[in-house]
Amino acid sequence: MQSVIDYLKANQSRFVEELCQYIRFPSVSAQPPHRKDMLACAEWVAAHCRKIGLQARVCPTAGHPVVVAKTPPAKSGRGKGSKAGGRPRFVVYGHYDVQPPEPFELWKSPPFEPRIQGRSLFGRGTCDNKGQNFAHLKAVEAYLKTGTELPCDLTFVIEGEEEVGSRSLAPFLQQHRAELDCEAVVISDTGMPSKKHPALTYALRGIAAIELTMRGPARDLHSGIFGGTVDNPAMALCQLLARLRDKNGRVAVPGFYDDVQPLSAYEKKQFARLPFDARAYQKMVGVPKLFGERGFTPIEQRSARPTFEINGLTSGYQGAGSKTIIPAWARAKITIRLVPNQQPERILKLVRKHLGRLCPPTVRLEISSGHGAAPYLVSPTGRHAQAALRALEAAFGYPPVLLREGGSIPIVNEFKRILRADSLMLGLALPDDNAHSPNEKFDLDCFAKGQLMSAYLWQELSRR
Amino acid sequence: MQSVIDYLKANQSRFVEELCQYIRFPSVSAQPPHRKDMLACAEWVAAHCRKIGLQARVCPTAGHPVVVAKTPPAKSGRGKGSKAGGRPRFVVYGHYDVQPPEPFELWKSPPFEPRIQGRSLFGRGTCDNKGQNFAHLKAVEAYLKTGTELPCDLTFVIEGEEEVGSRSLAPFLQQHRAELDCEAVVISDTGMPSKKHPALTYALRGIAAIELTMRGPARDLHSGIFGGTVDNPAMALCQLLARLRDKNGRVAVPGFYDDVQPLSAYEKKQFARLPFDARAYQKMVGVPKLFGERGFTPIEQRSARPTFEINGLTSGYQGAGSKTIIPAWARAKITIRLVPNQQPERILKLVRKHLGRLCPPTVRLEISSGHGAAPYLVSPTGRHAQAALRALEAAFGYPPVLLREGGSIPIVNEFKRILRADSLMLGLALPDDNAHSPNEKFDLDCFAKGQLMSAYLWQELSRR
Repeated sequence: MQSVIDYLKANQSRFVEELCQYIRFPSVSAQPPHRKDMLACAEWVAAHCRKIGLQARVCPTAGHPVVVAKTPPAKSGRGKGSKAGGRPRFVVYGHYDVQPPEPFELWKSPPFEPRIQGRSLFGRGTCDNKGQNFAHLKAVEAYLKTGTELPCDLTFVIEGEEEVGSRSLAPFLQQHRAELDCEAVVISDTGMPSKKHPALTYALRGIAAIELTMRGPARDLHSGIFGGTVDNPAMALCQLLARLRDKNGRVAVPGFYDDVQPLSAYEKKQFARLPFDARAYQKMVGVPKLFGERGFTPIEQRSARPTFEINGLTSGYQGAGSKTIIPAWARAKITIRLVPNQQPERILKLVRKHLGRLCPPTVRLEISSGHGAAPYLVSPTGRHAQAALRALEAAFGYPPVLLREGGSIPIVNEFKRILRADSLMLGLALPDDNAHSPNEKFDLDCFAKGQLMSAYLWQELSRR
Repeated sequence: MQSVIDYLKANQSRFVEELCQYIRFPSVSAQPPHRKDMLACAEWVAAHCRKIGLQARVCPTAGHPVVVAKTPPAKSGRGKGSKAGGRPRFVVYGHYDVQPPEPFELWKSPPFEPRIQGRSLFGRGTCDNKGQNFAHLKAVEAYLKTGTELPCDLTFVIEGEEEVGSRSLAPFLQQHRAELDCEAVVISDTGMPSKKHPALTYALRGIAAIELTMRGPARDLHSGIFGGTVDNPAMALCQLLARLRDKNGRVAVPGFYDDVQPLSAYEKKQFARLPFDARAYQKMVGVPKLFGERGFTPIEQRSARPTFEINGLTSGYQGAGSKTIIPAWARAKITIRLVPNQQPERILKLVRKHLGRLCPPTVRLEISSGHGAAPYLVSPTGRHAQAALRALEAAFGYPPVLLREGGSIPIVNEFKRILRADSLMLGLALPDDNAHSPNEKFDLDCFAKGQLMSAYLWQELSRR
């Protein structure tokens, strides 16, 4: 391993130059005029993978292509894949597409002309996800170029549609299921609280979307002529919604918490180690007082507890002044964040049933369910997670923290569903990296430490 | 009186022709291109008043002019005005402006080319308000042309801005307060349930408008990253609004009903006489079930009881699909209908106070009050009302009904405030007269009976 570590150390400046080449591709998947740039970028990635010793190819899909790059067959000849009793095999997932750079005027330097300032590399895609994923490629390069045997087989899957919903990924995984058979998927596309807090994200919240339309009279009615004899659908909707969250911040739907896996003492202890300044947080979001489910810390509330959020309300007159009507209808858009082991289908069923019971006979309630995504959890005390934690600590020199992410990352569910593999999310992004915003950056220390972490990770994951 | 009655009978067809001339003016106060038509119409009205024996003039205002027409000084020389101990004086209010006729394509005949079909006279303004007001002019004509002494002095005030908010009326009344000094104002600009139900509208609801803005985070927040730690302003607003109306349909604001004058047994009895088919009404408004304050009939609920209506809701995302945000703010537009003797200022104060108490510390509530109008009531058992009821019965041949109107008619409050005079609302419009809609019509029987009613009215009102 020492030669791998030495190689990484010795080649940092070249690695940064190469990353800069990668950044220069305006691989904006959302914007059709960049289709050629997308293909050029995929070709560059594949060529680079070949240069460092991987077997790489660009695989077309219905959308943007996927780059697949594999470590060469092991000298020991045990390359049959982990489930076939050979050496372990892992997939490293990343994406070469980036968010649109607009608004350009807010960038201090052009988004596709990488610029280094201190330890920050600025540019669109530096952090999300080119830089983070490139760290893994550099770790593998170090193994291959120093002749150090990798204890496992690796397959890189680098897609080009992550920023537009990964539409082609599931069909691709289905099609290459055998080839991609693996023990786990490693993804560096999340965050870490600080350079002193290397992190494993081991759980994600799921989501269930629902839209309620409360219908009253056949048309808007004059509130003077009719007011008092018909229910007001906006009021009926408010009264319905009001009953879905209690004063302790809990979702008031019978059975809603039945499947929630309680936080273990170990998890609670891990969360307590995370840096969190409630005052600064409150100021940052700009609320007069924080509010969340009683009995949980803000970190737990936002990542490990389910929520019921009204995302939008629409009814009647919205212009200036007033219009004296009883609106014909009122609508609420709602998303419910789910935690392990709540399932979107069951939760939506419970919510629908409860709403049906609560709705008064004076209005008609229409419910339409939208998208759903299951929550995700890798046991933090399991073998893979513990291996990842050791690799993080070895690379960063600080005890790593365990994170749950409040949002969803749908691809993780696809890996689980199609490849039957867990995902280890080892994010290298700092909170101020401006992913999806102007002046995106990637910290060069995180880049270097990320390479080290990746180098250690294959050792730790392959231990039996 | 017999000669008055005979004169009216003998001249009906000429009256209708004259009314048709009146209708032909496209006196649309809302549309600047019709400014000339407005003036021409006012001049025609004044000239017509002179022709029938009144002393008439066109009075300019900041907006469209007001036509003032007075009965000539009485032969008996007691024309000093009622408050000066002379003969009683009444004001007859009407308006020569009409609603815009659009959409033209829905009219079966051009709106300003009057057409008679059966007993209906079609045209914009036939009913609202040219025809109704013209009936009073024709009654006076009958007195003047037959040499029958009127038992009172009359002043017609026919304005040109009723359909655009009567902006110039209050200054006009202020300016001519002495000249317009009167016992009561007579207005035929409301409705009657059917030809068999001549009606006196003796009460109106008032109104108070209020807008609530619930502010949460400084900007829309990602519901995955932040959801669970901050209150959702849309939910907070729903929970606040939900508490303002109880399950019995009562407004749940302390003190809200303190000033409500209860319905008398006489009023309840009168309401019970009104034709009302709950099934047909429910079908017409298109609700699955009627809803209103427990303990009151629908007629009472919509005219004699206060209400709290949400007129509009706005928050967060309103487009297609979903957007996973905690919205930064949520807004509700509200109007409260008031009944005698609730005062808008006091009610708004109570509502603001209660909202302030209910608002949780996790959001900020902004309240802005809009327009208000006091409710209105003339005692239905008072001398004027009873006189009006006798005139209605004599003219229509059916026992009249007493109505409360659920909406507001702001000018009535101005007459009370500036002239200190009550208004007697003796509407001649039938429910299917399409006021403000295409194919507006006026029933020629209502026209003729309205003239008779007016002729009787001056006798009844002047009895001592």
